[in-house]
Amino acid sequence: MKKAPFKGVVAYPVTPFDNNESIDIPLFKKHVERLVSAGSHGIAPLGSTGVMPYLTDAEKEAMTEATIQQVANRVPILVGVSNLTTEKTVYHSQFAEKAGATAVMISPMSYWKLTDDEIVKHYDTVASKISIPIMAYNNPATAGVDMSPALLKRLLQIPNVTMIKESTGDIQRMHYLRKELGEEVTFFNGSNPLALAAFSAGATGWCTAAANLIPELNIALYDAVQENDLDQARRLFYKQVDLLKFIVAKGLPRAIKTGLDLLGIDGGGFKSPLKPLTENETSELDGILSAIKSEIYQY
Amino acid sequence: MKKAPFKGVVAYPVTPFDNNESIDIPLFKKHVERLVSAGSHGIAPLGSTGVMPYLTDAEKEAMTEATIQQVANRVPILVGVSNLTTEKTVYHSQFAEKAGATAVMISPMSYWKLTDDEIVKHYDTVASKISIPIMAYNNPATAGVDMSPALLKRLLQIPNVTMIKESTGDIQRMHYLRKELGEEVTFFNGSNPLALAAFSAGATGWCTAAANLIPELNIALYDAVQENDLDQARRLFYKQVDLLKFIVAKGLPRAIKTGLDLLGIDGGGFKSPLKPLTENETSELDGILSAIKSEIYQY
Amino acid sequence: MKKAPFKGVVAYPVTPFDNNESIDIPLFKKHVERLVSAGSHGIAPLGSTGVMPYLTDAEKEAMTEATIQQVANRVPILVGVSNLTTEKTVYHSQFAEKAGATAVMISPMSYWKLTDDEIVKHYDTVASKISIPIMAYNNPATAGVDMSPALLKRLLQIPNVTMIKESTGDIQRMHYLRKELGEEVTFFNGSNPLALAAFSAGATGWCTAAANLIPELNIALYDAVQENDLDQARRLFYKQVDLLKFIVAKGLPRAIKTGLDLLGIDGGGFKSPLKPLTENETSELDGILSAIKSEIYQY
Amino acid sequence: MKKAPFKGVVAYPVTPFDNNESIDIPLFKKHVERLVSAGSHGIAPLGSTGVMPYLTDAEKEAMTEATIQQVANRVPILVGVSNLTTEKTVYHSQFAEKAGATAVMISPMSYWKLTDDEIVKHYDTVASKISIPIMAYNNPATAGVDMSPALLKRLLQIPNVTMIKESTGDIQRMHYLRKELGEEVTFFNGSNPLALAAFSAGATGWCTAAANLIPELNIALYDAVQENDLDQARRLFYKQVDLLKFIVAKGLPRAIKTGLDLLGIDGGGFKSPLKPLTENETSELDGILSAIKSEIYQY
Repeated sequence: MKKAPFKGVVAYPVTPFDNNESIDIPLFKKHVERLVSAGSHGIAPLGSTGVMPYLTDAEKEAMTEATIQQVANRVPILVGVSNLTTEKTVYHSQFAEKAGATAVMISPMSYWKLTDDEIVKHYDTVASKISIPIMAYNNPATAGVDMSPALLKRLLQIPNVTMIKESTGDIQRMHYLRKELGEEVTFFNGSNPLALAAFSAGATGWCTAAANLIPELNIALYDAVQENDLDQARRLFYKQVDLLKFIVAKGLPRAIKTGLDLLGIDGGGFKSPLKPLTENETSELDGILSAIKSEIYQY
Repeated sequence: MKKAPFKGVVAYPVTPFDNNESIDIPLFKKHVERLVSAGSHGIAPLGSTGVMPYLTDAEKEAMTEATIQQVANRVPILVGVSNLTTEKTVYHSQFAEKAGATAVMISPMSYWKLTDDEIVKHYDTVASKISIPIMAYNNPATAGVDMSPALLKRLLQIPNVTMIKESTGDIQRMHYLRKELGEEVTFFNGSNPLALAAFSAGATGWCTAAANLIPELNIALYDAVQENDLDQARRLFYKQVDLLKFIVAKGLPRAIKTGLDLLGIDGGGFKSPLKPLTENETSELDGILSAIKSEIYQY
Repeated sequence: MKKAPFKGVVAYPVTPFDNNESIDIPLFKKHVERLVSAGSHGIAPLGSTGVMPYLTDAEKEAMTEATIQQVANRVPILVGVSNLTTEKTVYHSQFAEKAGATAVMISPMSYWKLTDDEIVKHYDTVASKISIPIMAYNNPATAGVDMSPALLKRLLQIPNVTMIKESTGDIQRMHYLRKELGEEVTFFNGSNPLALAAFSAGATGWCTAAANLIPELNIALYDAVQENDLDQARRLFYKQVDLLKFIVAKGLPRAIKTGLDLLGIDGGGFKSPLKPLTENETSELDGILSAIKSEIYQY
Repeated sequence: MKKAPFKGVVAYPVTPFDNNESIDIPLFKKHVERLVSAGSHGIAPLGSTGVMPYLTDAEKEAMTEATIQQVANRVPILVGVSNLTTEKTVYHSQFAEKAGATAVMISPMSYWKLTDDEIVKHYDTVASKISIPIMAYNNPATAGVDMSPALLKRLLQIPNVTMIKESTGDIQRMHYLRKELGEEVTFFNGSNPLALAAFSAGATGWCTAAANLIPELNIALYDAVQENDLDQARRLFYKQVDLLKFIVAKGLPRAIKTGLDLLGIDGGGFKSPLKPLTENETSELDGILSAIKSEIYQY
């Protein structure tokens, strides 16, 4: 069986910027602390929510170190290290390993669509330079290339590629992975509105930025599935589905930071060209959060 | 609450043709009998599996009457009456009602893409001419037009449109319907590979031709969901998922008839231009059916 | 070289209905006469514009005969005979041949997506039963199945399949046909907004309902290309492009009939569920037609 | 009228790497010289073909300076400066201006899909910091975001955004731009297989890497259009279309470098994870180049 250090709700913190568009590390640490305290089963800095591709090398390194320091071994840490070039991906993977990350998450960033052979070689090269596990992350909407289930299966032949994160939102991909690879492969769902269907299909965990806003509902959904209580899982899912759809539709960094502000928590500023939600969108999000809050004490 | 005469596994029989490409009614009745005996919760003649759009008016009428006669009130009957023109849809709906159908299923067949207003008017006209319930059926892959969840919600304002059948395979459509319309709306899943996800999302039933080949697995999946046993539902789903994907990928009439032949049951011939599966496809299907058979006594 | 009885602007008349949704044959003949008088190089009744799939067999036959009578050998006639079943396609093809049609146009109508082999067999069966030429018509948006350029090339191996009509709007399909099949293959463009690009790519003709509204501009564009005058062709195309896009976006029967009304010509009524343009759409079309009229005397 | 310093064939050189995956500047200069000598009307370093996003800041600066030095004012120079962040895009734009570039080319690189307002603000900020013209470049396949024609129209309101490069391959986008913006707007085609259709539609120029392999055919096509000789333009296009399709299908850096090798010219190495064409692909490209060579003296 492949080693899988993660399960449950893996939470993705935002990266807060100050007025000069520099990272505010102390504020970032507060966000990490909130996520750990809320009961998240893992923390994933430098994800899509954390706008990793927009950061300089020095910023990425500071974020990695800050996370590891703040988490202090309470939960496992998954560090995003994807990069357009193999050289840089190796560099950041090695940095994460030395700093103490539990595992790294890698998507095949692409400007030019990569061939399957190029992608396999890319993962293989990185894997040979580190000894911690790799989560292969498929998200064509952001990374620009779609890894087929068959390719993901190929990647799992590389010894320390032990986890798959699927974010296409296509439940059939998960059926394929489970059917082809058996119950021992751990795959994670990265598409928020697919949370119920993915857990029903046997996903090991849920990689989500929603835990910044509604951690108790996210975790309760996972718990209901663990307890084999489909009715309860369904009820919990429908309580949160509007938020899950909204944050994906609007872009996670925008929606989560604005949501934090609505909850009275400083989400920090943005790195241009990314901007906050518009006034109308903010008002829509406020309505969704209020509806959740009014229901939340009932289940 | 809207009246919903169906639930569970609604089975779609094939339409068998003889060597002259005429319908073999006695053979058709045997298929109906098999489906009822197997425990199907409803029977749906003249569906996509039954190649309804390829039949003459007289053939459709003979099929409707044969079904009603054979079922003999043991389970409810859902008759497909979709047609390109409103006039013909009214005609076949009235025929079905008089013949004793429980309800009719209508998709907005289209050559020219219909506007939302045209679709609403079409359903409204038909609904005003009959008094049995209507299932609004969305399947863009066959009918040629995609009804958005918002449009389906509009159709449910028409008094006897009381059921939705969603066959896009997009689980988010079902989330929307349930969230927008509440627990009292009955929606049915028509996408076989989505069976587990749809039941998890709260689907009332599953419209499927798979019941011609593996009725016990289809029904057991429904039962597991009814018993709130997600683990068992998942196990049962993974036993049948390869078949569910195959029959959709190859076209239901081709795959089901060839599958019946493999099971030693006469599925009857085809109406040109539709043809049976190729030799390679037949061999692939044989492998899938054999794998299911070898597992089936284990759960 | 394959026999190609058509070239230039092939005009598609509408099918006018009366208040009881029956065809108004005398009014239809007036439309045919207008198209011939305007200089169209061919007439194509029972096309998509003529809502052929919505008609009964008797109606189709009456339309075919009325066209042949009215045209009286002045230009060649292309009769649409597509049908879901091979049997009916043969029937209508034979009727058209006996009635005196120059050629028939056939698209592989589909409810169930047809395989390539099924499509080839379908055309081959029909071709073997008639001796007039066949135009293979690819329009996935209406017929529901997309014939690849490679499949179209296969169809051209059938002796009397001598013409291709491509309506996907993808100019690369035409490049492929021309490159693979040489200058002797005649392919026709059925996508109105692609008229300039298709003629530039070497299309033999343009199958269009626009000739009901702006025949002089359609024919002048063809003439400019024949005269190798790209600058003039471009000018003429930009005069009409807004109309070409509009009629496709709104559906040809709706847009052409409403446009005829705006020009003071009785376009006749519709067959339900198809309806006329809305008030706003009619107003938009009026603006487009007025802009064309004000420019038309300048070139 | 907006200032448009480019027209005709704008050639995109490759970026050659040595065995350590460092840029080989002397070899790069030879490629620039070949393109200028062949009669290209402009040179565009740091484009997609030049794998700009994979380079470090220092590498980009060295390439910019090398190009300007080698071209020595013989033709205008268009430098690619796109970047995920606004800050870095400003930085590289200012560098290019100071170094002597004629204009800069900017696509809205995206990891998170940008909103229209974010894109406008991004261009506006960059435009306010430089005084040379900007070409707004739309290529969703590489940049990850699709700028609608309406958004491109909005961008043209910014004073020094004076040119559009459209690489979607959708000819209707160009019709829209020309129709909406008039004959004075200069738009460039960046989709190689669309070269004939785009020039027919009125494109001012063609941004292409094909000029590394078949500059004489590229330039002759442009000349034929300038001479209003559509027949000749069509003949020339069909001579090169197979190559144009191939290089796009396989990825420009891979296909162009391998093609250079086949022509006996050192194209240099790749930056991982990008790799050369496979053996089969190389053989296919060889066949295409040979067919062109054997025809080329005939027109």
